[in-house]
Amino acid sequence: MIKKWIEKESQHVLNGRIFRYHKKRRTSPQDDKEGNFDVIECFPWVNVLAFDEAGKLILVEQYRHGVDDLTLEIPGGAVNHGEDVKLSAQRELLEETGYSSDEWHFLGNVQANPAFMTNDCSTFLAMNCKKTSDQKLDPMEEIDIHLVTLDSFKDKIKRGEIKHSLVIAAYALYSFWKNP
Amino acid sequence: MIKKWIEKESQHVLNGRIFRYHKKRRTSPQDDKEGNFDVIECFPWVNVLAFDEAGKLILVEQYRHGVDDLTLEIPGGAVNHGEDVKLSAQRELLEETGYSSDEWHFLGNVQANPAFMTNDCSTFLAMNCKKTSDQKLDPMEEIDIHLVTLDSFKDKIKRGEIKHSLVIAAYALYSFWKNP
Repeated sequence: MIKKWIEKESQHVLNGRIFRYHKKRRTSPQDDKEGNFDVIECFPWVNVLAFDEAGKLILVEQYRHGVDDLTLEIPGGAVNHGEDVKLSAQRELLEETGYSSDEWHFLGNVQANPAFMTNDCSTFLAMNCKKTSDQKLDPMEEIDIHLVTLDSFKDKIKRGEIKHSLVIAAYALYSFWKNP
Repeated sequence: MIKKWIEKESQHVLNGRIFRYHKKRRTSPQDDKEGNFDVIECFPWVNVLAFDEAGKLILVEQYRHGVDDLTLEIPGGAVNHGEDVKLSAQRELLEETGYSSDEWHFLGNVQANPAFMTNDCSTFLAMNCKKTSDQKLDPMEEIDIHLVTLDSFKDKIKRGEIKHSLVIAAYALYSFWKNP
């Protein structure tokens, strides 16, 4: 039976702009295995599957530095220090798109990558969103808004035009919420 | 209209055990925005949704250093340098579970996290898997096998017992494959 490993040593190697890198020395309680492991610590993230009043999904197109390419995603971002995750989701939706909603549902919490990342992504559903303001983008953000039907969103996943794992996981959580 | 940013400078900061960390200085072609961005480079990953001959899903339970906890996931791992992704998926399934299959389907490619990670996760479906060998675990791996029905797998996602975003994304890709 698998058990949690025991931490022998933790070294905080460095801070990136959006993560902290730790080296962990851990040992298995089952035998004498002992090794060094990478751990990337990030703030929690939030994602929002947001439908406007016409039932269209609000998507964000942006340049992403990891893949060095444009992507189509759902709105989301990092939770600020001490911020409530739902307020964070509402803030990210408003900042990135200018839309807001008074009907919010929690779809679930997924792990970014439990193998070496510490954080979760809390996924929300926002219904009947209205355009209530302009975008309030971070200094380094450029975001175009796309409104698409749910069928078109699914087709874009099938065709590989939407590829972000957290976005596709959000769709799965939504499908469970819709058809429990 | 959003455009790709232009790289001004790239600094390879350090190598972790499973990633390389780069700092990128990039500028927007739209205006004079210029900033520094974290990029985490990983090898490509593979994931396998594997069903045994009785139609049960083959899951792996293991201790994960990122979340410092046990997780239930589908088999998968990192593609070796120069390795074909399908062979990698077949190798990971065999090594982690001892199962193999002669019916493989490609479900799709998802991005780990395009915001700051470079890599994809290629997701495969393996049908009618047979137990053909013992596990061949890496020196630091401990893996218990669980066989569950697809309904139980879905329930575990709904209840938050399976939380890995790449695993949940794999389920979404499978549901599209099954009901195109």
